Amino acid sequence: MSMGEGRGMTAIGYVHGYSDREARRLGDQAEVLAELLHTGTAYPPGSRVLEVGCGVGAQTVHLAANSPGARLVAVDVSESSLAQGRARVAAQVPGADVAWHRADLFDLPFPDAAFDHLFVCFVLEHLPDPRKALTALRRVLRPGGTLTVIEGDHGSAFFHPYSAHARAVIDGQARLQSAAGGNALIGRELQPLLNQAGYHDIVVRPLTVYTDRTRPALVNGFTRDTFIAVFESVRKDVLAAGLSTAADWDRGIADLHRTAAADGTFHYTFFKAVAVNPPPSPRS
Amino acid sequence: MSMGEGRGMTAIGYVHGYSDREARRLGDQAEVLAELLHTGTAYPPGSRVLEVGCGVGAQTVHLAANSPGARLVAVDVSESSLAQGRARVAAQVPGADVAWHRADLFDLPFPDAAFDHLFVCFVLEHLPDPRKALTALRRVLRPGGTLTVIEGDHGSAFFHPYSAHARAVIDGQARLQSAAGGNALIGRELQPLLNQAGYHDIVVRPLTVYTDRTRPALVNGFTRDTFIAVFESVRKDVLAAGLSTAADWDRGIADLHRTAAADGTFHYTFFKAVAVNPPPSPRS
Repeated sequence: MSMGEGRGMTAIGYVHGYSDREARRLGDQAEVLAELLHTGTAYPPGSRVLEVGCGVGAQTVHLAANSPGARLVAVDVSESSLAQGRARVAAQVPGADVAWHRADLFDLPFPDAAFDHLFVCFVLEHLPDPRKALTALRRVLRPGGTLTVIEGDHGSAFFHPYSAHARAVIDGQARLQSAAGGNALIGRELQPLLNQAGYHDIVVRPLTVYTDRTRPALVNGFTRDTFIAVFESVRKDVLAAGLSTAADWDRGIADLHRTAAADGTFHYTFFKAVAVNPPPSPRS
Repeated sequence: MSMGEGRGMTAIGYVHGYSDREARRLGDQAEVLAELLHTGTAYPPGSRVLEVGCGVGAQTVHLAANSPGARLVAVDVSESSLAQGRARVAAQVPGADVAWHRADLFDLPFPDAAFDHLFVCFVLEHLPDPRKALTALRRVLRPGGTLTVIEGDHGSAFFHPYSAHARAVIDGQARLQSAAGGNALIGRELQPLLNQAGYHDIVVRPLTVYTDRTRPALVNGFTRDTFIAVFESVRKDVLAAGLSTAADWDRGIADLHRTAAADGTFHYTFFKAVAVNPPPSPRS
């Protein structure tokens, strides 16, 4: 669903594009969401940590800030995203130890078991075969090391006042992402995906964002500037794909804005999974 | 949505009926949900607490257990529910100080400001005018006293694997409840309802239940025995109302059970609101 970092980890189409405005949106929302998403994620000094699909570094700055002394490596397929990520980290976490590499998730330039921990946020949603990706990542993760995955789920969104047009906007974006090979509803699947990819000790936790008028910073920072902004950013593509009419889409967007108004409420759930890479089985 | 206590607080139809099996279901689920719903709810010794719509006492036992010394009063419109509630509390919280009254929410036999705190759980979902009910309750709550409201929201349910038939089952039950004058999607509306009813200092928190194979007790206790059980219990009524066919309904129920199987996941959100009854305004 791309409620966050857009990372084109592979050559598939990236639904959000790479405009400057998009980069700013990703940065803003990361501030608002950082506490929710990063609580509990801190790596010991000296540990080798790989962020897969770092994009413009919106999560990398929090990894660096929350794990001083960890040896962070960040990879992405986009050179320009990496350049933005490097600049962002330099500005926000001066002195952070981050190495940046342009690389594809399925062809990582690292030896086996090179990392103690992997961090993958808002990446699987864009992949045609997320299970294959999770399986491939195990090669560079040492046995006993952990993988942390964060994804959203557009099907988790509900709001007041109810609007079929608003619902259609969310569904339209999900169909667009699906047509590009992704899955905007992947959050609910993290547990089975990790299980099928061979990870052990899987713990999945829902991370809920709920906004109403008593939480004005979150109404602005999440409902308006993060969630609705995702949909406003794909209007042209949705219309071009024939997934909505301009009139229906604009009414849906207007109705979504009503959920951020005086008597509106809005609810969205992210999923955060932590799992362990088991030792190779004796038979393999 | 009646994910829990059914309390026929007024004379409107109660969608779940009052069978023995229903009473057992309500008791079982209350155990599983008690910690989630009651955390943070404890009243000081000597405080006067009214539970509105206590039903068969599934929440009353937790109120009594968590607030020893509070003077609890429990009301419901159903004599037989009250009898069951009285027996349940006597068995599970011996010595608890609970007074039981048969009463209608809109005609409570108590003086103004008789209570320091009100507790209302899974009641508003059954009322045609929940705002009017919340407004009426302010009479018996002292200025400065608190109201706690807990409701579910069927629109918050999502699951893996996805199934349009399962979704239709949930929507069918919601339409049945709606036809009876209720609202199975009321959780998301608590904040505006309380605001419109004149309460102050409203804090609404989502309480999320997420189940997957790593949480087998919750898969059984919540997904199967609480959530799916709600729908299994209304099959006859849904079919009689023409809201589904037997084949579609049974397929939807089977698909819901798949969400409780090996690679399934299930997500549901309750909402808990706490608000303060303000002093009467100078002009009123």
